[in-house]
Amino acid sequence: MTTNHRVKIMETVLRDGHQSLAATRMRISDMLPMLEQLDEIGFHALEAWGGATFDSCLRFLDEDPWERLRTLKKHLKKTPIQMLLRGQNVLGYNHYADDVVTEFVNRAVDNGVGIIRIFDALNDVRNLEVAMRAAKKAGAHVQGAFVYTISPYHNQESFLKVAKDLVELGADSICIKDMSGLLAPYTAYELVKTLKADIAVPIQLHTHYTSGMASMTYLKAIEAGVDIIDCALSPFALGTSQPATEAIVAALEGTERDTGIKKEQLYPIADHFRSVKKSLAQDFNLNTAIDIDTKVLSFQIPGGMLSNLLNQMKEQGMADKYPDLLEEMPRVRAELGYPPLVTPTSQITGSMAAFNVMLGRYKVIPREIKDLVRGKYGRTPAPIDPEFRKMIVGDEPVITHRPADDIAPQMDFLRQELAEKGYPNASTEDVLSYAVFPDVALNFFSKHR
Amino acid sequence: MTTNHRVKIMETVLRDGHQSLAATRMRISDMLPMLEQLDEIGFHALEAWGGATFDSCLRFLDEDPWERLRTLKKHLKKTPIQMLLRGQNVLGYNHYADDVVTEFVNRAVDNGVGIIRIFDALNDVRNLEVAMRAAKKAGAHVQGAFVYTISPYHNQESFLKVAKDLVELGADSICIKDMSGLLAPYTAYELVKTLKADIAVPIQLHTHYTSGMASMTYLKAIEAGVDIIDCALSPFALGTSQPATEAIVAALEGTERDTGIKKEQLYPIADHFRSVKKSLAQDFNLNTAIDIDTKVLSFQIPGGMLSNLLNQMKEQGMADKYPDLLEEMPRVRAELGYPPLVTPTSQITGSMAAFNVMLGRYKVIPREIKDLVRGKYGRTPAPIDPEFRKMIVGDEPVITHRPADDIAPQMDFLRQELAEKGYPNASTEDVLSYAVFPDVALNFFSKHR
Ligand SMILES: [Co+2]
Ligand SMILES: [Co+2]
Repeated sequence: MTTNHRVKIMETVLRDGHQSLAATRMRISDMLPMLEQLDEIGFHALEAWGGATFDSCLRFLDEDPWERLRTLKKHLKKTPIQMLLRGQNVLGYNHYADDVVTEFVNRAVDNGVGIIRIFDALNDVRNLEVAMRAAKKAGAHVQGAFVYTISPYHNQESFLKVAKDLVELGADSICIKDMSGLLAPYTAYELVKTLKADIAVPIQLHTHYTSGMASMTYLKAIEAGVDIIDCALSPFALGTSQPATEAIVAALEGTERDTGIKKEQLYPIADHFRSVKKSLAQDFNLNTAIDIDTKVLSFQIPGGMLSNLLNQMKEQGMADKYPDLLEEMPRVRAELGYPPLVTPTSQITGSMAAFNVMLGRYKVIPREIKDLVRGKYGRTPAPIDPEFRKMIVGDEPVITHRPADDIAPQMDFLRQELAEKGYPNASTEDVLSYAVFPDVALNFFSKHR
Repeated sequence: MTTNHRVKIMETVLRDGHQSLAATRMRISDMLPMLEQLDEIGFHALEAWGGATFDSCLRFLDEDPWERLRTLKKHLKKTPIQMLLRGQNVLGYNHYADDVVTEFVNRAVDNGVGIIRIFDALNDVRNLEVAMRAAKKAGAHVQGAFVYTISPYHNQESFLKVAKDLVELGADSICIKDMSGLLAPYTAYELVKTLKADIAVPIQLHTHYTSGMASMTYLKAIEAGVDIIDCALSPFALGTSQPATEAIVAALEGTERDTGIKKEQLYPIADHFRSVKKSLAQDFNLNTAIDIDTKVLSFQIPGGMLSNLLNQMKEQGMADKYPDLLEEMPRVRAELGYPPLVTPTSQITGSMAAFNVMLGRYKVIPREIKDLVRGKYGRTPAPIDPEFRKMIVGDEPVITHRPADDIAPQMDFLRQELAEKGYPNASTEDVLSYAVFPDVALNFFSKHR
């Protein structure tokens, strides 16, 4: 071991843990009994907001996400609340106007968020600028995250460059965000070493257990000097979630990089969340026991999505073309400029490959593919071949500037729209809920406003 | 990494994997469709016999365990079949006569076992002598295993000494057997280094995911030069089973200690066993989704057993004494000479501690405690205080010799007993089934002989 300082842990049980294993269905009432105890552990932060929780609150749990945030903040007096933000997409999959992004960040920080992790699915840092600037101004700790992926255009140097760009933009820390567990232990060691050598701010690693390597990956990242790792308490760990907090704490006990956390303090909290998991599984009819599936390493697409695609092909009587699909996917991904395969690019690429195999290559082209190819989501990691682009979008204009430059301010317009729908005194928070999830927000307002 | 050779994998899906996660209920029909494919992978061995499988075959699956072994051998032409043997206990928890042990080993090897892992719950090597000698003579690869545990009387030196004794007895390889996942990664590194420095035969590591550290433990053991590790294909991995084969293979891919196994070849096999797990869960009404529980590190007793004890105390209206129980357990273990807490010593120690807390210390003393204290199972790791022994067993004779020296040959007697029960022409295999599990064997014979 090369560094002599404590590993810090960011606990994800209140966000990514249940988003990964329980369809984001954890309710504030499930959290409340343990917030004070969680606050006492000495976690670097508690991830508890953003990601899919906002949508889930409004859509499934009949909770106001802003109210949840204020409640969390009231009980978490020592430990910063961390949120996950998709850059210019805020919490969705489309780009929003700058004023929506800025206002969203402002209200999040004002209501209790202390650390904002900001990323872009294509690692186009221009899509992070506005959110990072707003977060900085609002006084939050701004974490710039880049998505880890594997392709001929991604390597230690390309990731280092993105990280440097993020620091340039004001990042207080850098996060390696590995959403499908692609990062192998010894690769993690090299990547963390590379970043630590050139980046002065703390380096955090976020991974998922999907392929089964995640805790080994953390161990090697720790040996390489990573500062912070994301873990979930055991009932909401493993499977497609993070490595287990208790296990990492125990593994480092008494070593140079001891977390300083007492594992015994975690047991009663884990016991509580074990029964929460059981009740979520019952109340929402969920399968919370998700096996790891190393297939993700071969196709960069989780096994569950592969079997969905296979089922679609079966329905069309084309199951025999499944091997072709497995060959077509990397080909499509290369043509699309090697986007990291995360939501929604994984679905977009998978569907495109399935269409290609079933109907002929690019006979049918979904809107999302056209948008991706003409730059509407930002710069792809690899340049797109001009002839390929021409085939996909014809003469549609290509976007080389920051995509959100084309979007006029929306806040005033949204506020007015809400007034016309019967909510003339909507709070800024409500306008933002309406901005990002209009239909579910209106449905929620109809019951609660 | 310090050694430049392939890590070998012993695959446990056919034995410890389903023994750990599916109550040992996997049937030969669940295995048959994949045996040829498993045989092609290049595993060091396939653990497929012994442990609890023998009892389960007869008791629950209406299968003759010897017949299963012959069927396995017919389909596994390249990869050795490995079995687990509890030394002088064979497959149970009592000592058997030397002729039973010897004959059991003979028949196991004759029917297809290639590697026999032999251990004793107290690490008293005298309890391994007869089985090891028989296995050696029968031409099997003899693996001497010692149980890993944590106590003031267990350390690198004490384990090295047991390992050396086992090599002296003819062990072709040594196994560190960590039944509850107590071995932490950096401790594993030191232990493997210590053994590799002084032991010429290959070192194998067997651990369980129970505490959540197991794959990290393997990684550090691999860096220290361990030769073979035990893994289970992902559907029967993690939880209280072994780390996942695919994940370990993937983590080492392209490194100096690459396993040489192609992970893509494992996917269809894992898919098959994923559906086997589902059908076992349905057919036998099992919960196959077992969370890790790091509590095992604090109490050396898995969390499930702790909650059983808590429930017993609740039934007696003494739930408030549970914290006393947690303090009493290590005290009892110390008094008993620090036995490794594995089946059955974990149950014995746990019950004794519960009795002590509920009824007063040693007011009621189960037979098993008296036997353990007077040496009937063998030498305890730490000497037992003479006054304590006197309190427990009074003037009962103390056993300092090899316990099985007191047991007269049993085979002829058992064969005659079987004849009297209506099976005069019982095969030696049937006599052995009757020797180790008399009632279930008779019940099985009544239907099939
Ligand atoms: Co995540
Ligand atoms: Co085992």
